[in-house]
Amino acid sequence: MIDPFDDTYFMKRAFQEAEAAFEKNEVPIGAVIVIKNQIIARAHNLTETLNDVTAHAEMQAFTAAADYLGGKYLKDCTLYVTLEPCQMCAGASYWTQIGKIVYGAKDEQRGFEHYKTQLHPKTKVIGGILEAECSELVKRFFIEKRNLN
Amino acid sequence: MIDPFDDTYFMKRAFQEAEAAFEKNEVPIGAVIVIKNQIIARAHNLTETLNDVTAHAEMQAFTAAADYLGGKYLKDCTLYVTLEPCQMCAGASYWTQIGKIVYGAKDEQRGFEHYKTQLHPKTKVIGGILEAECSELVKRFFIEKRNLN
Repeated sequence: MIDPFDDTYFMKRAFQEAEAAFEKNEVPIGAVIVIKNQIIARAHNLTETLNDVTAHAEMQAFTAAADYLGGKYLKDCTLYVTLEPCQMCAGASYWTQIGKIVYGAKDEQRGFEHYKTQLHPKTKVIGGILEAECSELVKRFFIEKRNLN
Repeated sequence: MIDPFDDTYFMKRAFQEAEAAFEKNEVPIGAVIVIKNQIIARAHNLTETLNDVTAHAEMQAFTAAADYLGGKYLKDCTLYVTLEPCQMCAGASYWTQIGKIVYGAKDEQRGFEHYKTQLHPKTKVIGGILEAECSELVKRFFIEKRNLN
């Protein structure tokens, strides 16, 4: 049986958030948090809008998801994010005890895997879902930005 | 000439924030951010109050300091925090490009130095300012908490 709610389905929702960031002239990264096939948080990068380098999509999504659930921990949740999380966001995920992280494109320079950020022992990680699309969007953003300056 | 605004002076201000957290039944960690001997942000751990594991003293202080300065980066600022920052907070400090981090007690289990979190190349670190007091406060918190349960 085909599961309509697979990782690609939810990554597409995260990608829509990344597109919303792009429209706001933000580095286009989006995230959703899912529990039992239900999206309980959506967010996109807002570092420019909020003038706050900590306003990554994941950080906002963690806060929103905990608020929705009424508990601090996200043990049964999955984070879908279009770019591999950075050290800060991976470090935050440790505290949330999130069950699973699914990311789109790899971030060779700033991603947590390169820096070996410690995740919670119960957190599983899958990378490369919709990788090409997620990566392309970020590349396009920086090309357009460069051409404008 | 004695400088009244030395690291101990500002760590005492961070310690007052940690005491405020203690009073709220929060793990007692406090932080201030200073630029040119002026405190521009004060914060203490609010993870229980806000039901948000990302609400560490440092994260709030970074956001408040950037808001005060009107710029995203904290290059000329110093963070004073009573406990060695975790991976998340150290990862956030990377993005702020903060000039200096001064911490009180070492966090052997969750501190960023153990996990080798990458700081911004321009960030200097000093540990052990008011170490005994900062460490004692956290220990006292957990002893009291244990006795209540």
